[in-house]
Amino acid sequence: MKRNIKLIIEYDGTNYSGWQKQKHSITIQQKIEEAIKSITKEDCEVIGSSRTDAGVHARGFVANFITESNIPPNKFKYAINSKLPKDIVIRNSEEVPLEFHSRFDSKGKKYIYTILNREEPPTIERNYVYHFPKKLDVDLMRQGSKFFIGEHEFDSFYKKSGSTVKSTLRNIYYCDVIKRDNLIEFIVIGNGFLYNMVRIMAGTLIEVGIGRIQPKDIQDILLAKDREKAGRSLPPQGLCLYEVLY
Amino acid sequence: MKRNIKLIIEYDGTNYSGWQKQKHSITIQQKIEEAIKSITKEDCEVIGSSRTDAGVHARGFVANFITESNIPPNKFKYAINSKLPKDIVIRNSEEVPLEFHSRFDSKGKKYIYTILNREEPPTIERNYVYHFPKKLDVDLMRQGSKFFIGEHEFDSFYKKSGSTVKSTLRNIYYCDVIKRDNLIEFIVIGNGFLYNMVRIMAGTLIEVGIGRIQPKDIQDILLAKDREKAGRSLPPQGLCLYEVLY
Repeated sequence: MKRNIKLIIEYDGTNYSGWQKQKHSITIQQKIEEAIKSITKEDCEVIGSSRTDAGVHARGFVANFITESNIPPNKFKYAINSKLPKDIVIRNSEEVPLEFHSRFDSKGKKYIYTILNREEPPTIERNYVYHFPKKLDVDLMRQGSKFFIGEHEFDSFYKKSGSTVKSTLRNIYYCDVIKRDNLIEFIVIGNGFLYNMVRIMAGTLIEVGIGRIQPKDIQDILLAKDREKAGRSLPPQGLCLYEVLY
Repeated sequence: MKRNIKLIIEYDGTNYSGWQKQKHSITIQQKIEEAIKSITKEDCEVIGSSRTDAGVHARGFVANFITESNIPPNKFKYAINSKLPKDIVIRNSEEVPLEFHSRFDSKGKKYIYTILNREEPPTIERNYVYHFPKKLDVDLMRQGSKFFIGEHEFDSFYKKSGSTVKSTLRNIYYCDVIKRDNLIEFIVIGNGFLYNMVRIMAGTLIEVGIGRIQPKDIQDILLAKDREKAGRSLPPQGLCLYEVLY
């Protein structure tokens, strides 16, 4: 009997070329498919809710796969974890209806981009933050972040890649900037994100934080629909996918 | 002219055999001495405030060294950092009186031991936490931690090593257990700590957290002066030296 298993996955993306399988590099999808195959002896395609880039991390990545194995759904977690390297872990496994598709059925995602704002570079967090040495004004950044909320065409905030997108319209439900000690977190929840979109949003908030642009300029940059108007894309290691909404 | 330079150092201890120089392994002291020598061209002994074990981390380790170099004291930070690997960073450098000794003059230290309390093992924090899968009662642990406060002979809470100690009397100024999401932090400030003392204190609080012993049993264990009565020593990677007091 065929069953559809939904996985919630946490990983440290430092040592991987992102989620999606590639010919000449090691990816998270490949590691999980290999782990499942070694348990079920079936060829298996694991469908991911998104394609995270090399170096990006996840706390709550969602994926699903079809299996004929009779392993109880909630036991897959332990079986797969026993076959995975230390930087990938299954946090939950459960049966879902056969038609469930982790990418197509996703209603939204929550990302956090973390900036270490102090003069000296990070040691303990070096693979999990972007280091920005000059003092950032967190209040201005928070004000700026609020202009992202709502439905906008995000042409100014994405990197054109090989594949073309049908629409750049995305709905941002929640956006905030908070500070804990020297760490500044940019938190964003939206119905979908274009390629590099969170990293460019974060890079533009850096411009706000150093006073080069005003918080309300975010609005004009959105309206300009011009990638040149926004800030640069911050590096991948500061980005973490926290949750996928259904 | 001789000057005494005080350093505040942060490091990720994962890849080192602790602070202190050793013949056949790489230590933090060695890396810092090499970095200073490459700048000043002087042979240099860096005096550390304590000996952290292999795998233990630091946010605010203090050390000092004597130099005849005319580099301005607050510039040493940049010069040394340019020569250090990515997992060690000087957070501050300043001139102190020639008689200042980072170990002998220390009035106390602040440590935090971090436990990840969830079923599945850690990925992102795997080198910085101790993983405990069974549910811990943080309130009981907090109550237990309060019995450490004050002056006690800590015979039950240290590992006898090669060198003998004159006295096991130590004064604990502050002790608490807090929870942030799945992370439980055991915070302790005291005038000094015996070998493995914080790790055994944390291990004993685990016994309290699973209900094997009562919070007030900590008092009896202290009075027993018997290493067998306390919990086991937790692994090094959960431990971090946060601050050295003068």
